[in-house]
Amino acid sequence: MQTPHGVVHTPAFMPVGTQGAVKSVTHHELEELGAQIILGNTYHLYLRPGDSLIARAGGLHKFIGWSRAILTDSGGYQIFSLAERRRILDEGAEFRSHLDGSLHLLTPERAVDIQAQLGSDIAMVLDECIATPATEEAARIAMERSVRWASRARARLLRIRQDPSSVPDVVATNAGQAQFGIIQGATIPHLRSESVQRTIDVGFDAYAIGGLSVGEPPEVTYDLVGHTAPQLPEEAPRYLMGSGMPDDLFECVARGIDLFDCVLPTRNARNGQLITRVGTLSIKNARYAEDPLPPDPDCGCYTCRHFSRAYLRHLYIAGEMTAATLNTVHNLYFYLDTMRAIREAIMLGTFDKLRSEFHQTFSRRPQH
Amino acid sequence: MQTPHGVVHTPAFMPVGTQGAVKSVTHHELEELGAQIILGNTYHLYLRPGDSLIARAGGLHKFIGWSRAILTDSGGYQIFSLAERRRILDEGAEFRSHLDGSLHLLTPERAVDIQAQLGSDIAMVLDECIATPATEEAARIAMERSVRWASRARARLLRIRQDPSSVPDVVATNAGQAQFGIIQGATIPHLRSESVQRTIDVGFDAYAIGGLSVGEPPEVTYDLVGHTAPQLPEEAPRYLMGSGMPDDLFECVARGIDLFDCVLPTRNARNGQLITRVGTLSIKNARYAEDPLPPDPDCGCYTCRHFSRAYLRHLYIAGEMTAATLNTVHNLYFYLDTMRAIREAIMLGTFDKLRSEFHQTFSRRPQH
Repeated sequence: MQTPHGVVHTPAFMPVGTQGAVKSVTHHELEELGAQIILGNTYHLYLRPGDSLIARAGGLHKFIGWSRAILTDSGGYQIFSLAERRRILDEGAEFRSHLDGSLHLLTPERAVDIQAQLGSDIAMVLDECIATPATEEAARIAMERSVRWASRARARLLRIRQDPSSVPDVVATNAGQAQFGIIQGATIPHLRSESVQRTIDVGFDAYAIGGLSVGEPPEVTYDLVGHTAPQLPEEAPRYLMGSGMPDDLFECVARGIDLFDCVLPTRNARNGQLITRVGTLSIKNARYAEDPLPPDPDCGCYTCRHFSRAYLRHLYIAGEMTAATLNTVHNLYFYLDTMRAIREAIMLGTFDKLRSEFHQTFSRRPQH
Repeated sequence: MQTPHGVVHTPAFMPVGTQGAVKSVTHHELEELGAQIILGNTYHLYLRPGDSLIARAGGLHKFIGWSRAILTDSGGYQIFSLAERRRILDEGAEFRSHLDGSLHLLTPERAVDIQAQLGSDIAMVLDECIATPATEEAARIAMERSVRWASRARARLLRIRQDPSSVPDVVATNAGQAQFGIIQGATIPHLRSESVQRTIDVGFDAYAIGGLSVGEPPEVTYDLVGHTAPQLPEEAPRYLMGSGMPDDLFECVARGIDLFDCVLPTRNARNGQLITRVGTLSIKNARYAEDPLPPDPDCGCYTCRHFSRAYLRHLYIAGEMTAATLNTVHNLYFYLDTMRAIREAIMLGTFDKLRSEFHQTFSRRPQH
């Protein structure tokens, strides 16, 4: 995948850098880990420090000092998570800031403008993400609203691209920014198909599948990905938003997905959960108090090459920030190295073998 | 200075790694910064994870995965800071753990045993550190008790060195561990001289000056260092405990000090205080919100080479852990690079010039 900040080899995993930083690791560590692209959250960056400030600094890449690719979400997902603090209107999503309670309206056009100012390499359209299970009626309403919003978002971006002066308050900081549409339709296959068709009719640079991995069983996710992804254009990357667990990577690549993002490796790291090829190791467990082994003896990450479970447990129990850093380095290495292995296996034609080997050892159940 | 874990070029600054980690940076970052030796706090490591656990892991170096030198304090300073939770007896210091309130007695012998188990390269004797200003009577009592404790500590270490089996519950994990005596005497020069004489009479591998930088004005510190350091053996390193501010480094090197430790660069970093050659920059200040400059445009550290004050302020305000990491990297670089410059200047015979240039720009007053 070509971006204004370099090629992203796919399938790829994007570490989540919510507020302009992937929590508890430096950009240097991310680069060493082989992160090709990170995700920034428009909701957070819009509220603090603000997209206009970032635009004045020359855009998000320059502001945060990250020279590789960045994808920004639309802000919608965070807003839908605000529960009582938000209201969905046809005009857009009205919400109160979690920081100061101030009232904001995020329209599809505003979501485009903000991301144009941030200057990410990939901007996502505002969509309506609903809780599952949903009734067909609720799913249809949200899907159709998402399509109308997609159309408004596309028109806005094309206007900014073609005649920047016609949108006077917006300073687009990345002329090569791509825009991805998002497929909705909850867990109802024919709504997913309709969403695909109508979103492709709007016409985007590429497409994402939204509204999955929001609590439904993995088999349901896989079936819907398997149903939806093949309907998306083959020449553009397909992005599954917000997945996944390590096994999701294999199962969804198998079904045609090229891009992933998930807070799981970074968030779980901060909670002392180390992800390995056999499952999750909870480092606070007393059984590790004197364990001289690294989290995963076969892992090549900085943490596993240098530190024991006993030391990592000590750091976690003692509340040292370094615990979060070392655990995050391990978990991100696991994800990024898994994606490297998947890319290589695809090239060599051995992906099915790699996938079945992975399932032979990996378990979602905690290791201990 | 030769240690079992490499040569330490002096004068040297030791970053403080309280619980077996220098807060918010990895060992790799410390190595890149050029840290030759770090300090571990016996009080903290004794309480958690415990010196016996660390001994079973092969000693502190192995437990924490740090291959360069380590100095451990005796635990005394932390105990004296516990205020109502401690009682000083001739036998030792009785205290309640800040973790669980449990009662402990740290004798001079116990402080030796614990550090022998930790296996640091340099162990400090238990001394009594009192608040200043102190009456001559109080200062004499503490100084004399420190000398008696020093004598007991020395006897204990020699016994462990000569016949380990005579101290059955102690597993010494570093056969080359050195032991430093500590000079006390508050701010009273003739008590300092007496402490020097009586501590040298006990006979240690090297000597430290304790009980300074505990609130007295810098001129008083400098006068006492200038009075005390020249009385210590020239062939052994002289360690000024707990100093200092950046100007302390120059003033105390000028008076004969070879080793420093201080929490200031790391603690201040976590509070958003960046130390530069012109003074302290408080990154949370609103004036930095759109400042594209690095903290110090002349600094060669990772943080200053890659990030603006605006971004660092954003990370701090947003509560990102990375703020602590990047600020710590900068502050430690400043300290360690200053020591490198001092060593070079001493070799070239230009130390006085470097010292006066430093004072021309540096101010203890906040920069803004």
